[in-house]
Amino acid sequence: MDSGRLEAFSDGVFAVAITLLALNLVISGPGPHQPTLAAKLGDHWPVFAAYAVSFATIGIIWVNHHALFKNISEIDRTLLFVNLLLLFFVVSIPFVTDTIAAYLRAGGGNAALAGALYQGVFEAMSISFTLLFWQAIRREHLQVSLTPRQARQATIRFGIGNLGYIAGIGLAFASAPASLALSGLVAVYYIFEQTPGRAPQPPHPSTSTDPGSTTR
Amino acid sequence: MDSGRLEAFSDGVFAVAITLLALNLVISGPGPHQPTLAAKLGDHWPVFAAYAVSFATIGIIWVNHHALFKNISEIDRTLLFVNLLLLFFVVSIPFVTDTIAAYLRAGGGNAALAGALYQGVFEAMSISFTLLFWQAIRREHLQVSLTPRQARQATIRFGIGNLGYIAGIGLAFASAPASLALSGLVAVYYIFEQTPGRAPQPPHPSTSTDPGSTTR
Amino acid sequence: MDSGRLEAFSDGVFAVAITLLALNLVISGPGPHQPTLAAKLGDHWPVFAAYAVSFATIGIIWVNHHALFKNISEIDRTLLFVNLLLLFFVVSIPFVTDTIAAYLRAGGGNAALAGALYQGVFEAMSISFTLLFWQAIRREHLQVSLTPRQARQATIRFGIGNLGYIAGIGLAFASAPASLALSGLVAVYYIFEQTPGRAPQPPHPSTSTDPGSTTR
Amino acid sequence: MDSGRLEAFSDGVFAVAITLLALNLVISGPGPHQPTLAAKLGDHWPVFAAYAVSFATIGIIWVNHHALFKNISEIDRTLLFVNLLLLFFVVSIPFVTDTIAAYLRAGGGNAALAGALYQGVFEAMSISFTLLFWQAIRREHLQVSLTPRQARQATIRFGIGNLGYIAGIGLAFASAPASLALSGLVAVYYIFEQTPGRAPQPPHPSTSTDPGSTTR
Repeated sequence: MDSGRLEAFSDGVFAVAITLLALNLVISGPGPHQPTLAAKLGDHWPVFAAYAVSFATIGIIWVNHHALFKNISEIDRTLLFVNLLLLFFVVSIPFVTDTIAAYLRAGGGNAALAGALYQGVFEAMSISFTLLFWQAIRREHLQVSLTPRQARQATIRFGIGNLGYIAGIGLAFASAPASLALSGLVAVYYIFEQTPGRAPQPPHPSTSTDPGSTTR
Repeated sequence: MDSGRLEAFSDGVFAVAITLLALNLVISGPGPHQPTLAAKLGDHWPVFAAYAVSFATIGIIWVNHHALFKNISEIDRTLLFVNLLLLFFVVSIPFVTDTIAAYLRAGGGNAALAGALYQGVFEAMSISFTLLFWQAIRREHLQVSLTPRQARQATIRFGIGNLGYIAGIGLAFASAPASLALSGLVAVYYIFEQTPGRAPQPPHPSTSTDPGSTTR
Repeated sequence: MDSGRLEAFSDGVFAVAITLLALNLVISGPGPHQPTLAAKLGDHWPVFAAYAVSFATIGIIWVNHHALFKNISEIDRTLLFVNLLLLFFVVSIPFVTDTIAAYLRAGGGNAALAGALYQGVFEAMSISFTLLFWQAIRREHLQVSLTPRQARQATIRFGIGNLGYIAGIGLAFASAPASLALSGLVAVYYIFEQTPGRAPQPPHPSTSTDPGSTTR
Repeated sequence: MDSGRLEAFSDGVFAVAITLLALNLVISGPGPHQPTLAAKLGDHWPVFAAYAVSFATIGIIWVNHHALFKNISEIDRTLLFVNLLLLFFVVSIPFVTDTIAAYLRAGGGNAALAGALYQGVFEAMSISFTLLFWQAIRREHLQVSLTPRQARQATIRFGIGNLGYIAGIGLAFASAPASLALSGLVAVYYIFEQTPGRAPQPPHPSTSTDPGSTTR
């Protein structure tokens, strides 16, 4: 079974989830005793901040998903269901984004729980992606197998996301806004990350002649 | 007419329907006399349970749809419309999911009706899928025809879903939560099901040399 | 420019619009002085009726769009924008569906206007599709050109939809439910229509040897 | 990395964003002291006007995106992220459309701010598209390189959009409805624009023999 339709379905889910994020931005219309639009927009900053972080995170998952499946030649039933597990958490992101936006300034246990829930879904999504990657390696479904150096780099890359979100769960109990900022930093890290031998993207089969591979 | 665009349109509908499920998860923001977020989330369990079962069910329909159409070489007008009938019930799933989530603890006739409606849409979806399968066989549109053993297995596979949802309609009148749990079990069954000769997925044309085919 | 991406974008819009129809089905949860779920569902019939008619209509537009573009070899800028015009009315269908569902039993001028608006969007969508078809013929973009008989049949086919929706606009002023029923009949007609030489779907290039073509 | 999946994901986002625009059209149902449907629809004109302008604008971005990527042979990580930046602003369009529709007649600073926000997102989207175009040229990813005349024309084309939206930000402080009308004019300009050597769409490699290229 080829990966075309899995990618099409996943792209659809990513596209809908990333666009639904914006449904929560809506601001109430003008009314007799309402504050000005400027005041409302200013008051709305947690919604915009959560929207930006979640948009960047879903965008990066999509980029990584794209890179991983470029190198997968064959799909089996297990991969289909691990991919569905990943999508389950992606689809939950608009919900936890709304929740953290609503409770970010509530303080106390409410903000902490909203922050931990947000980070928890990101962590679960990150773990699902790692499972997808392991499953792809274990079943020898990669078109171009990884060199040990590439495998180490991939482990480091996934580790940074996983550790960031776990730290975020803890940080949420100290400060929900700080934990949201941390998720934003993780997203920025992935945007600018340029490891030369990015594991899931060996540009050409000739990467197996990469000097690192001589340590195999 | 090839099946590419039918699959693309169906994938779009599956992707939107599965993502819209999460729109119902939203929790009201903090307010003066409101319970804590933890209390709200705890109180919200029917919404999460219904979301998980519906997500898994749509995911499995998609996997089976994917498997069926891999083996269909040609699409005619009847298949297009039977597929639209299937999508009609898929699109209805977010509605019945919201309804069962809202009424699960209402008890009495309300919960029973909400549960029966939920199971009824799943059953209608399951029947539509069976019609799609029969239509594909009858018109000899399969690229690889089924052996009698494969046809028997396919009948058993579809039967389990159909019987499960019909039993769920009855069970809803005794206990709506139990009927929701039953749908969850049907979904789990399909996730772990590994019948060797899964009918709509003959891996290679060489399956026609399968020992079971000698009984033809 | 090939038609692949136009079809993918259009499929996305069709898929989202058809799935958003179901957002309006939502029923309020149980409450202290609320009627039973059965009473609410019964009271909700205009919503279900409008949903079914709109679903069938969008489904049929999609089937016809699919059939038309199978036979178009090349896309120019005009076709792109006529297609956007068609999508503009498709995207408006969830709105007019909600409106007719809300006002169907309101009676008087309100129901008539809601019905006329519904039929008017269907008529505008139908005219856009006719423009798309004419544009495709005029620019000689069809892979297989139509015989005069096929062209006559295509004109009849489009005419039935156009006349049905225009009649529906008028009928809405007498009875909004009757105009909704008429749109449902138009949809049923297209589902069962089986004209042998359906214009946009010449099965093989050999249709140019069709006897009708001798009258050219 | 080829551009297929980037286009599929982008098409999904464009399709969902353009369809979500219509969610805001909804009109409240009939009630005891409510105005007639005709009065409500008449009162609703800013919603319809904003919907039409935003629909046309997203449609045109999609047409231009389509034209640009037809001529891009290879995608790198930078292009993926610049494309995500473009999609970030596309996804924000339903939000600013709702806001301008709600505040268009509010007058004073509220209407001005709503108008400036609307134009600002369009301008940011336009700048992102220009960045995407520059990035595509700079990295020599175009399959058919541009002649100097084509490059000049492309600069003029992008400039008109950019200047139009910047003018719109200023105009919003004088009159929000006038700024909305200006965005509509920009959209109409792009629909009817027919520059012969449209930069991102060189119809054939033979355009390099275009007389303009002799000035190179």
